Amino acid sequence: MITLYGTPVSGNACKVRLLLGLIGLEFEEVDVDLMAGENRTGSFLALNPRGQVPVLVDGEVTVWDSQAILVYLARRYGEAWLPADPAPMAEVMQWLAVSENELLFGLARARAVLRFGRDFDLASCQTYGRAGLKVLEQRLAENDWLAAGRPTIADLACMPYAALSHMGGISLDDHPAVRAWIDRIRALPGFIAMEGM
Amino acid sequence: MITLYGTPVSGNACKVRLLLGLIGLEFEEVDVDLMAGENRTGSFLALNPRGQVPVLVDGEVTVWDSQAILVYLARRYGEAWLPADPAPMAEVMQWLAVSENELLFGLARARAVLRFGRDFDLASCQTYGRAGLKVLEQRLAENDWLAAGRPTIADLACMPYAALSHMGGISLDDHPAVRAWIDRIRALPGFIAMEGM
Repeated sequence: MITLYGTPVSGNACKVRLLLGLIGLEFEEVDVDLMAGENRTGSFLALNPRGQVPVLVDGEVTVWDSQAILVYLARRYGEAWLPADPAPMAEVMQWLAVSENELLFGLARARAVLRFGRDFDLASCQTYGRAGLKVLEQRLAENDWLAAGRPTIADLACMPYAALSHMGGISLDDHPAVRAWIDRIRALPGFIAMEGM
Repeated sequence: MITLYGTPVSGNACKVRLLLGLIGLEFEEVDVDLMAGENRTGSFLALNPRGQVPVLVDGEVTVWDSQAILVYLARRYGEAWLPADPAPMAEVMQWLAVSENELLFGLARARAVLRFGRDFDLASCQTYGRAGLKVLEQRLAENDWLAAGRPTIADLACMPYAALSHMGGISLDDHPAVRAWIDRIRALPGFIAMEGM
């Protein structure tokens, strides 16, 4: 049995839910109430010392962090989602890095300010997020998918916070290639959307 | 021929230099003068649209982002540095995520404020960096290496900014396991230090 510890408003949990759905794996989801501090309890910290969602438990294996979970699931259940050869695997990793940098500390934090009242500096988060969108737009203007010429976990890692940009006060009007790519991902069989997407 | 585009003060370039040295690969290094804006020229942006070091060029293959370069080099030249099985590979990826989150946006940014006059909020960077060190300390108190029971790219990704913590005003006095782990990495044959380490 696969269990995903997530929460409906987490873009990082969405990344994992997307891959589970697209591979077609059965899973149960435990909703961790972050507002109630359920992610800071001893039992949750035993799963993930960082106290964050998502966490995946698959039998004896526990994996925390969305990037690590995507790699785990692809390697174990869906090799098409993560090429094994050095160059294309590295290409996927490049975009996982973008998802963990400009998109998480830019787009996701801007959303966290406006949606959850977090006290990050909104303007600098938006600037950083737009830098990430610019790189995505450049890439997607000439490629349907971010890496390896096909859908991979790179797309799933980058898509949620890009698709939620508007919640951080960032418009995708100037990013037609990003919008078209979001639509391509949404059209994949097994796609599972989240709130605000 | 392998070429590393880096700069002596970059902890991210150091990660790549470390792996090149530990695998024992020959490489040449091009010093990109960030202060002179050499990372914003057209020719550099053609290598890396994000305008950052490190970039690795290996024949026909160009890889940007330290995490992606570590994966590329390990998959191509040093498989012992990145386990291929799903669970241990994911374990490595967990710590790559910590290196791209708490360590980069905490420890490295705190150093960037004090060393390079960047305008990030020092106190919040230090708080975030300390959260990363706490997780490292917990892990390393019970394990010699971060993942897979042996030295991997997880250690190389996390070590540089941990070892440079003091430059961001963060002491490792309360982190004996982190200090011992840094010493273990330094003792590996082929280790290449950087300024301030």
